[in-house]
Amino acid sequence: MKKVVIIPDSFKGTMSSKEICDIIGRTVKKYYPDCNIVSVPVADGGEGSVDCFLTAVGGKKVYVDVKGPYFENIRAYYGIIDQDTAVIEMASCAGLPLVEGRENPMKTTTYGVGQMILHAASNGCKKIILGLGGSCTNDGGTGAAAALGVKFFNDKNEEFVPVGGTLKDIAKIDISGKANILDGVSITAMCDIDNVMYGSSGAAFVFAPQKGADEKMVKELDNGLMHLSDVIESDLGVHVSNVPGAGAAGAMGAGMLAFCNAELKMGIQVVLDTVNFDKLIEDADVIFTGEGKIDGQSLRGKVVVGVARRAKKQGIPVVAIVGDIGDDIDGIYDMGVNSIFSINRVALPFEQARKRSKSDLESTVDSLLRFSKLNIGQD
Amino acid sequence: MKKVVIIPDSFKGTMSSKEICDIIGRTVKKYYPDCNIVSVPVADGGEGSVDCFLTAVGGKKVYVDVKGPYFENIRAYYGIIDQDTAVIEMASCAGLPLVEGRENPMKTTTYGVGQMILHAASNGCKKIILGLGGSCTNDGGTGAAAALGVKFFNDKNEEFVPVGGTLKDIAKIDISGKANILDGVSITAMCDIDNVMYGSSGAAFVFAPQKGADEKMVKELDNGLMHLSDVIESDLGVHVSNVPGAGAAGAMGAGMLAFCNAELKMGIQVVLDTVNFDKLIEDADVIFTGEGKIDGQSLRGKVVVGVARRAKKQGIPVVAIVGDIGDDIDGIYDMGVNSIFSINRVALPFEQARKRSKSDLESTVDSLLRFSKLNIGQD
Repeated sequence: MKKVVIIPDSFKGTMSSKEICDIIGRTVKKYYPDCNIVSVPVADGGEGSVDCFLTAVGGKKVYVDVKGPYFENIRAYYGIIDQDTAVIEMASCAGLPLVEGRENPMKTTTYGVGQMILHAASNGCKKIILGLGGSCTNDGGTGAAAALGVKFFNDKNEEFVPVGGTLKDIAKIDISGKANILDGVSITAMCDIDNVMYGSSGAAFVFAPQKGADEKMVKELDNGLMHLSDVIESDLGVHVSNVPGAGAAGAMGAGMLAFCNAELKMGIQVVLDTVNFDKLIEDADVIFTGEGKIDGQSLRGKVVVGVARRAKKQGIPVVAIVGDIGDDIDGIYDMGVNSIFSINRVALPFEQARKRSKSDLESTVDSLLRFSKLNIGQD
Repeated sequence: MKKVVIIPDSFKGTMSSKEICDIIGRTVKKYYPDCNIVSVPVADGGEGSVDCFLTAVGGKKVYVDVKGPYFENIRAYYGIIDQDTAVIEMASCAGLPLVEGRENPMKTTTYGVGQMILHAASNGCKKIILGLGGSCTNDGGTGAAAALGVKFFNDKNEEFVPVGGTLKDIAKIDISGKANILDGVSITAMCDIDNVMYGSSGAAFVFAPQKGADEKMVKELDNGLMHLSDVIESDLGVHVSNVPGAGAAGAMGAGMLAFCNAELKMGIQVVLDTVNFDKLIEDADVIFTGEGKIDGQSLRGKVVVGVARRAKKQGIPVVAIVGDIGDDIDGIYDMGVNSIFSINRVALPFEQARKRSKSDLESTVDSLLRFSKLNIGQD
């Protein structure tokens, strides 16, 4: 093997994409020391996404002082991965770990996210990749919009920065003051869920409980988002509430659509585009990908299938190394995956298996590479 | 792939060696339809051993009327696998399933086994492979010996056929009446355990409880075997009690040594010799073997390592497909195994995993063959 591309999803709860890249990469090196290893840890938009992009394509970290979830001052960073592309993860200034023990989506803001976007734009970035994931907010992106210059007024015509609990007070939205520096800046929001803005499958009902909301709060937050959707429709003339992904990150998806004309895309597609995947895999002998569990559901645009679809066009073999292999996987072979292996090496329940996942992954890849050396496939 | 040899151990409690051969074989055919598949289901000496040999090398079944465990009349069969080689499994007339619900190693006999040996000899067989395994007896092989013409006397000089509970009554053994037809007949007993005849790691203490003995019986049986050993020593002049394997099958191992000058061999070695393994694997592209669990213990002459040692001499690749992969397997690679794969595809405890072992095996082999087709091992 002369060239191998490694591009796995994380195994949720056991290994990050970067850890998996490292384990597979060093095992390949053991058997093919001269092999060119191209590692692309896949960012999912949540914590660690900036680091994933920096690992995959290089770049620099930019530290910036912004507002945290409770409008406190914090320091966060984003990445600039080429001259004009920034990667921002909203979790860095509006993430759940920042409010541990004091979660309250009625009061938290995405204001800092807007500040980071502005900072990147003033740094000359024309493309901004924004990771939606791991947020502690439910403000519909109004905080971020406020930081960008969008004005929100109550029915007394007083300007304010809305949070989840005060969305219902928005009487008017004035977008005319949005910073000029954003003209010509495109924002792509990474978002792996397709929830709508409000209602039973909306942001509040599905995700706010994880962010500390009780039943009563969930209803208030949902009503707030519904109200915000109405005002957006009447004042900005756009309908965003039913766009798949509008409900992502406390309806940050909806806010980015409405206030920034952002594009919502599956994380893996953003990664593949950003790393110039089609070019990257040229001449590769094999692509190793994987995810925590592969099954019929994986066809819905997850990492393995996203990778395989593109690899198939160039006829490059794809081997998936996964945690569990579920049923109905025939369709996955049709998508361009050539072979699938589970890292399970002993019959154990997941709670025990997860503790040994790193060594199991390494041993499984080791076995596979040993097997590859046999060259028994020729007729 | 032009030629594949499949020679797995059974996966205890889930799949027989023959079932595994069938699953691997038909999966190979799916990807390499012109491949020559050589299947060698491995007999372990227990139930099914005769069928394994017949599958591996062909031959015929010979039905014979003999005595069962309680001296009742039963019909059993042995195999003749070439002109002069018979395969007999003692389980066919002294097996645990024959006494289900009325297990009693104080009273059961191996008499029928002796009858089968005689029958094979009178059929012209000069080599007899005797599978020790799955027995319900603890008679030290005295029953079988009696059927062959060996005479046992009590202290009143009355001849009798000893059973487990009457071993202590043997005062004298006279081997002079042993059937002449056995002259020039060699007996090889297949035996995968190395227990001695009596004592804490002897036949009674270790195995009699599975055959229905309570604590008191175990002690009586053990005393009986010790006494038998003494009489064998004094009357026949041979010391068999400490030979590894003497304790196999209710000390049938000891009896075969003492009364028939048998050779005790590991099952896999008997199989490899019988199928002429070194010749059989010539020109094979790969050998698939396997066992229920592979680990450091596997080095002790089990199937996978037994197969690998011989294959290594000819430089033929060996791939082990197993249930669980334990620790300390590096030594197994040194023995000639090239690569090891577990059939576990989902993190589940064994009790659940075992129910899906057949489909898991098939899917794992399927993945492996798909992978082999990629031919990514070349530099």
